[in-house]
Amino acid sequence: MLDGGKTFITGGRNADRVLVVCRTGTADADDRRGGLSILVVDNTSPGFTVGRTLEKIGLHAQDTVELSFSGVRVPVEDRLGEEGAAFGYLAHNLPQERLTIAVAAVAAAARAVELATGYANERRIFGAPLATFQNSKFVLAECATEVAAAQAMLDQALAAHDRGELDAVDAAKLKLFTTEVQARVVDRCLQLHGGYGYITEYPIARLYADARISRIYGGTSEVMKTIVAKSLDLAR
Amino acid sequence: MLDGGKTFITGGRNADRVLVVCRTGTADADDRRGGLSILVVDNTSPGFTVGRTLEKIGLHAQDTVELSFSGVRVPVEDRLGEEGAAFGYLAHNLPQERLTIAVAAVAAAARAVELATGYANERRIFGAPLATFQNSKFVLAECATEVAAAQAMLDQALAAHDRGELDAVDAAKLKLFTTEVQARVVDRCLQLHGGYGYITEYPIARLYADARISRIYGGTSEVMKTIVAKSLDLAR
Amino acid sequence: MLDGGKTFITGGRNADRVLVVCRTGTADADDRRGGLSILVVDNTSPGFTVGRTLEKIGLHAQDTVELSFSGVRVPVEDRLGEEGAAFGYLAHNLPQERLTIAVAAVAAAARAVELATGYANERRIFGAPLATFQNSKFVLAECATEVAAAQAMLDQALAAHDRGELDAVDAAKLKLFTTEVQARVVDRCLQLHGGYGYITEYPIARLYADARISRIYGGTSEVMKTIVAKSLDLAR
Amino acid sequence: MLDGGKTFITGGRNADRVLVVCRTGTADADDRRGGLSILVVDNTSPGFTVGRTLEKIGLHAQDTVELSFSGVRVPVEDRLGEEGAAFGYLAHNLPQERLTIAVAAVAAAARAVELATGYANERRIFGAPLATFQNSKFVLAECATEVAAAQAMLDQALAAHDRGELDAVDAAKLKLFTTEVQARVVDRCLQLHGGYGYITEYPIARLYADARISRIYGGTSEVMKTIVAKSLDLAR
Repeated sequence: MLDGGKTFITGGRNADRVLVVCRTGTADADDRRGGLSILVVDNTSPGFTVGRTLEKIGLHAQDTVELSFSGVRVPVEDRLGEEGAAFGYLAHNLPQERLTIAVAAVAAAARAVELATGYANERRIFGAPLATFQNSKFVLAECATEVAAAQAMLDQALAAHDRGELDAVDAAKLKLFTTEVQARVVDRCLQLHGGYGYITEYPIARLYADARISRIYGGTSEVMKTIVAKSLDLAR
Repeated sequence: MLDGGKTFITGGRNADRVLVVCRTGTADADDRRGGLSILVVDNTSPGFTVGRTLEKIGLHAQDTVELSFSGVRVPVEDRLGEEGAAFGYLAHNLPQERLTIAVAAVAAAARAVELATGYANERRIFGAPLATFQNSKFVLAECATEVAAAQAMLDQALAAHDRGELDAVDAAKLKLFTTEVQARVVDRCLQLHGGYGYITEYPIARLYADARISRIYGGTSEVMKTIVAKSLDLAR
Repeated sequence: MLDGGKTFITGGRNADRVLVVCRTGTADADDRRGGLSILVVDNTSPGFTVGRTLEKIGLHAQDTVELSFSGVRVPVEDRLGEEGAAFGYLAHNLPQERLTIAVAAVAAAARAVELATGYANERRIFGAPLATFQNSKFVLAECATEVAAAQAMLDQALAAHDRGELDAVDAAKLKLFTTEVQARVVDRCLQLHGGYGYITEYPIARLYADARISRIYGGTSEVMKTIVAKSLDLAR
Repeated sequence: MLDGGKTFITGGRNADRVLVVCRTGTADADDRRGGLSILVVDNTSPGFTVGRTLEKIGLHAQDTVELSFSGVRVPVEDRLGEEGAAFGYLAHNLPQERLTIAVAAVAAAARAVELATGYANERRIFGAPLATFQNSKFVLAECATEVAAAQAMLDQALAAHDRGELDAVDAAKLKLFTTEVQARVVDRCLQLHGGYGYITEYPIARLYADARISRIYGGTSEVMKTIVAKSLDLAR
């Protein structure tokens, strides 16, 4: 019998089945991570409701909803994995999840540089292409350099992941760094577009609106810093 | 007889009359600013059309449209001011326009600090208010400090404006600085909200989406820098 | 009878008399600030020694030493002010001390802009003055704008100080902001000097070496943030 | 017969022989890079003088001097390489030179994090190690993350160099990024040291003083941006 709710579920409106991490036992004082299990809930289950779709700054092609569970009966055979073992399953996949966010972040930043390069070549200011101004050149060079650094870090992480060796700390550094590069680069490339950068039919505007969630989802930048700090042998 | 178009007109859909700066004479080689006049065009004039409303990242309470003029007849008595004098009229009001953008920028940044302070006091992380974490305190202190600097600069400019002495350079510095403070502060205060900061029913999300245009409209940050640089006695 | 030591005393080698804040009573549990008094110690007093002069990154015109006190006898008439009241005396002057640091910080930043402007006008790159490059113009415009914001905040604080109303929070914001402006502006103006910026016979190099202590002495930037945060009605 | 001078020669006082790039022919209008040759000059040659040692912000273990050449006779057999081919020789080694600067920059930044970690663990503030404060943790985590990104980019460049494939653009991005990371990281790690960070007997202070030249020598950050911009297919 499942009771509770969860906000910010991407794709929740379209899902036929949802995987719910829920408490099925008490947490031990010495093991706060215990007592959690994964249940598979069908969207036709009595007591399962999908709340209204939340309006977001960007990511308009994805729905984000609140799900609620009111006395939803779930048979034991719909438990995924072992009882009480959910935390471990989740933690196991976190580095990979952060890696995928980093892939998207680097791709978005690289695309922003392409878009701004194209725009700067076409747009004329006082009779000369915007691209001929030293400020445009320097901004794009700085952005391209940040993208190259992010790409190098990403390449290294992908290779580690392929070997099954991407650890939580390196994934945290990667997510922190690449999403901050994404934020800075997309913002600066939008600026080069002038007023057109604010109009959402231009891809740079959508890259900007979409980018703001990267530093938040999959663990905020602050959570990433906390993970990295724990690896530094600092006094507790 | 008026022909041409203008994109990015705020409120263009709702206007009964629009003031059009248009070329009514050739520009002299030694006075590129001449030959411009202001005409008042009624929205019922034949040949006047309002294009589609452009979708923007934010400022959703304002419409932004393209206006087009195709053989629109405007009688001489609908000219506003002297023939050929429009550039001077416009330039005269630019410092004041930038001052109003600065007022809004400082207000938005100050409001973001209030919103983040309130959220940080209420939101609990691992059993304690978010506001009790040193990072939250430092981020908010840094933001409050930037707002104080922006407010001091704004107060000075307002006093100069009251005396009729706000010049183009000081207005450019003010617009440049306050809109960059707005961008940094709103971004950081959104971050403190976590996922809620991305949901537009939260005011901080709307402050963020609205803020992105401040560094662009009323003259981009790059235009402001160009104006400031001209005041620095630099070799041309 | 005075025992103990204090490191980082500017001018300690040249002082004839030093004012020592020392513990003359126990601190109450409910008033940790009590029990401190100010004693005037003559540099000829037995037991008083001046340690070696510490070498610093900059501020080479000032000596910085450690002072030590070993059984130094100080007569009661050499106590300055009331017994146990030293903390209050010190705290009373902190806003003014921070104000003076801010004055120096803004002056240093403004001077850096002047120096870089002069250098950029004289130095020729590929046959044209460095000042004619857009990057030089934009960097100097950004620096001049930051200086203007810092100056506005300083002007406001000076007026408050004249009225006897400069409080600890505003002084903390002022010191935090102006010293960070100093750091950014001096660094960028040095960069415009190229290799000459690293040679200490050039004033910009000395401004740079001197600037690094501003964010530390008179209370670090972190202490300033702590003071500002306490004013924000945040949960403790 | 060699006439002229060169400022900023590291190790110039200690060199027995110096390699001089000088003009031995006119530059063609269509090949501005021609007409330069490398001559080997012995420090005992008549007309060769070493000027005074320039005082620098840091790098105090290296001398930096001006060399002057007044009618110095150099026999043809002391020409290094082909006549008129010097530019190509120099350009060939620039990526490697920038790679070595990047190696030093990343090492310095990594060392700064170690030093600050050690200091933060030992230094106690209000009875607790500085390392236990969230701000210390976050600053160090951010620094460690930037170092990791710089290291990844450096690893990639080293591998390319080993294969003989490190090109000018990638070397420019690498030098630009790693020296800016060095600047930011060393500055922040110094800040964690408080007043001790300004005393040159502490290694962090020397790392800081030494770091300022990295963004200047071997080609300034602005030169690196110019090289990167040329690779971006921007309108000229």
